[in-house]
Amino acid sequence: MESEELRKYVNFSEWYDYVIEAADIIDKRYPVKGMLVWKPYGYKALKITMRILEDLLEEYGHEEAYFPMLVPEEVFAKEKDFLEGFSGETFVVERTISKVLMRKFLLRPTSETVMYYMFSLWIQSYKDLPMKLFQTVNVFRYETEHTRPILRVREIIMFNESHTAHESLEDADRQIKEAIEIYKKFFDSLGLSYVILKTPKWDTFAGAEYNFDFFEIMPDKRAIELGSVINLGQKFAKAFDIKYQKPDGSYEYVYQTCYGVSERVIGVLISMHGDDRGIIFPSHIAPIQVIIVPIPYKGSEEAVFNKSEEIYRLLKGRGIRVRIDKTEKTPGGKYYYWELRGVPIRLEIGPRDVKNKTVTIVRRDTLERIVISEHELLDKLKELFKEINENLSKRSWDWLHKNIHLAKSTEEAKRIYKEKQGIIKLPWCGSDECGHKIEEVTELEGLGHDPNEKAGGYCAICGKEAKWYFYVGKKY
Amino acid sequence: MESEELRKYVNFSEWYDYVIEAADIIDKRYPVKGMLVWKPYGYKALKITMRILEDLLEEYGHEEAYFPMLVPEEVFAKEKDFLEGFSGETFVVERTISKVLMRKFLLRPTSETVMYYMFSLWIQSYKDLPMKLFQTVNVFRYETEHTRPILRVREIIMFNESHTAHESLEDADRQIKEAIEIYKKFFDSLGLSYVILKTPKWDTFAGAEYNFDFFEIMPDKRAIELGSVINLGQKFAKAFDIKYQKPDGSYEYVYQTCYGVSERVIGVLISMHGDDRGIIFPSHIAPIQVIIVPIPYKGSEEAVFNKSEEIYRLLKGRGIRVRIDKTEKTPGGKYYYWELRGVPIRLEIGPRDVKNKTVTIVRRDTLERIVISEHELLDKLKELFKEINENLSKRSWDWLHKNIHLAKSTEEAKRIYKEKQGIIKLPWCGSDECGHKIEEVTELEGLGHDPNEKAGGYCAICGKEAKWYFYVGKKY
Repeated sequence: MESEELRKYVNFSEWYDYVIEAADIIDKRYPVKGMLVWKPYGYKALKITMRILEDLLEEYGHEEAYFPMLVPEEVFAKEKDFLEGFSGETFVVERTISKVLMRKFLLRPTSETVMYYMFSLWIQSYKDLPMKLFQTVNVFRYETEHTRPILRVREIIMFNESHTAHESLEDADRQIKEAIEIYKKFFDSLGLSYVILKTPKWDTFAGAEYNFDFFEIMPDKRAIELGSVINLGQKFAKAFDIKYQKPDGSYEYVYQTCYGVSERVIGVLISMHGDDRGIIFPSHIAPIQVIIVPIPYKGSEEAVFNKSEEIYRLLKGRGIRVRIDKTEKTPGGKYYYWELRGVPIRLEIGPRDVKNKTVTIVRRDTLERIVISEHELLDKLKELFKEINENLSKRSWDWLHKNIHLAKSTEEAKRIYKEKQGIIKLPWCGSDECGHKIEEVTELEGLGHDPNEKAGGYCAICGKEAKWYFYVGKKY
Repeated sequence: MESEELRKYVNFSEWYDYVIEAADIIDKRYPVKGMLVWKPYGYKALKITMRILEDLLEEYGHEEAYFPMLVPEEVFAKEKDFLEGFSGETFVVERTISKVLMRKFLLRPTSETVMYYMFSLWIQSYKDLPMKLFQTVNVFRYETEHTRPILRVREIIMFNESHTAHESLEDADRQIKEAIEIYKKFFDSLGLSYVILKTPKWDTFAGAEYNFDFFEIMPDKRAIELGSVINLGQKFAKAFDIKYQKPDGSYEYVYQTCYGVSERVIGVLISMHGDDRGIIFPSHIAPIQVIIVPIPYKGSEEAVFNKSEEIYRLLKGRGIRVRIDKTEKTPGGKYYYWELRGVPIRLEIGPRDVKNKTVTIVRRDTLERIVISEHELLDKLKELFKEINENLSKRSWDWLHKNIHLAKSTEEAKRIYKEKQGIIKLPWCGSDECGHKIEEVTELEGLGHDPNEKAGGYCAICGKEAKWYFYVGKKY
């Protein structure tokens, strides 16, 4: 790091802001608040990441489509809760430079209304169901709050949103389970930990029956939403008149779900896996997986460069994303540079390696340095790629578990939060009233509850038998 | 085709409109003019196509990035010709649903201004050059003219735009040549023919020095622009203050180029390769490359289905995009369905094929039917994929050559155009005045000239010795 002062767990916010720019992920200098330029290195990592999710969705029978970015006002306004929920943050187009348009258009903040207009044309019969579509697109939200690069932005450049329609409530519920399974696999593959909570009723997505959020705990111990899985019930189907004919000839509105993930996941990944030296990419996400640093001494230049090239070709031939650093920096300068950028494996090749037919390997996650013989290289890399990913995942799960605290009362919750932050869970009777009260007394935000986790003890507010734990914390 | 009346070369416009919807490429019913919904089948073909171009650009040293969609008005206005050129067609955002914004933003119609603002921050020294970036994004143009699905739209959903910066005019010229080479490879890979013309000065891209367009001749014999390659010179560099320091310490403005291709290319591909039965996809573009149609007779059902499954697994294992049609349609109904969708190869599997260990193959392009023994299948498919692509390409080049006509005078040009349409080329002295006059007298649009093609004879207007041929026609 440029400054000794940048330490991830000490001043996370400065660490994050520095790292994402210095490591060429994004450039914040674009002159519109909340809108970023993605540099090639960062964009590559983002594309690799999103492709993992897209492949998973296809594996589970979703098909990719594209729906327009501009939504006519009258289509946007069809579902009233949705309209109200998004009215504060949706951009409007009503003219071109030279003329006023006849109608108003909205920049999609998410695509429910755009898609469901079409669903009503496409879905006629039970044979058309289930319908499972997704798209990865840019969406726009005028967030009045504090924007944060990648994590809270006004142009979300890669919003992966899935939308499904089903014959029955049970089918929709099953789809919610499938979506959770897909997202688990996705976050697992990124080595991110999470807790899956059912959102408090009063914070449920506009127009939805219920939703689940995946939360990670960031290095500053605030909770961040990684993804949302939403059961829309029939509200949109009724607003958009999406009906299907059953085998018996009668008609019913479809049951819908939707779920979404955005580039935020890369911001979280960088935050969770990084260290004081910078980013640490999981091996399959890294835009560059192996960086070769030749360390020539006088007289050995040619031999060292030749061997570096040879190894470069070997790895490239195996589909590994590899690069040789041929710049004029010192070896130390190169280490610093590539560590900051999170390249998982560094290979150092010096005269001794040439002579002994060895390679020196440095792992980015542990900074461990080992010397192996050349012919072991491919096997060793494969092994290390796996180990690095497992290690990052383990660290992330340890962090999450360490930062979820149980409190039996609101008093205890406040005391623990003051000391440790993170997420606090309290026994809860399940009533909206007590949930609200917990938020109010602890001065924390309700994140929800895990319906699979039965609570012991008594509700922290009313003292009745607890059903679940109510999770609270501070959210991004 | 649903109606006997739809014949590609007779009523192309109806043919095109029918095919793109019936074959599940797009849905035109989205209630905003010039904005389309892309269905999964069409979107897959588009993604496969764009990936070919993206891979080519990366092979030639371009890096992919992402720049914001909203352009602040003051950034957009920096280059005056550009501002003027796009002022009629650029959408404006000046509010959200609930409040008026402090500044105006424009929806990018193309990203010169967005990118070059950043280039001025990124480029300091000759060491930063050349810079070669691209992005594939949605852009917006309020075309007042007649919109045409995919070909002329208001939301271009996949605009692949490259932008480069160089030390000298010569380097920029070299980049133009490289861009032309890349686009040639790209269109060649799609089996599309083209003529590359230097745009008449009076039609040159807003803010540019000169540009080249790739033109194809559509089945209705009108010319369509497939892609543009533009030398921007130093105009944007001066407007955006993009300077670099030379090795000698002095400063100079960079020289820039840009070039772009959009989803239009898929519209052209469908138009050029299709026939009266529908689409014909080149084998590597087809979302489904092989469709297996089991033709069971009473008593042979199980054997036929088992063999179909077996072949399905064989092909899938080799990475071929294959599907079995298990619907309840008649075989004829299935042929019709998949021919419309342009699947290059159909495999029919009946009891006789089971018995004789054979497969019946039908090529979509020639409708030729052959029976081969099972063990030849993989080799035969590989061969046919190649032959189909070569055949489509040959047809497309034959069509182009057949539809470019030489005329020695404007009278002859008018006569030929009246009879044959297409593109007419006339000997030309090279002066703007005579170029304009040719357009005026022939009542056709000037498409440009090919600087590598020296003309014989005398200028069709002034009678002086001709330098080049001036190409005219009617454009999409």
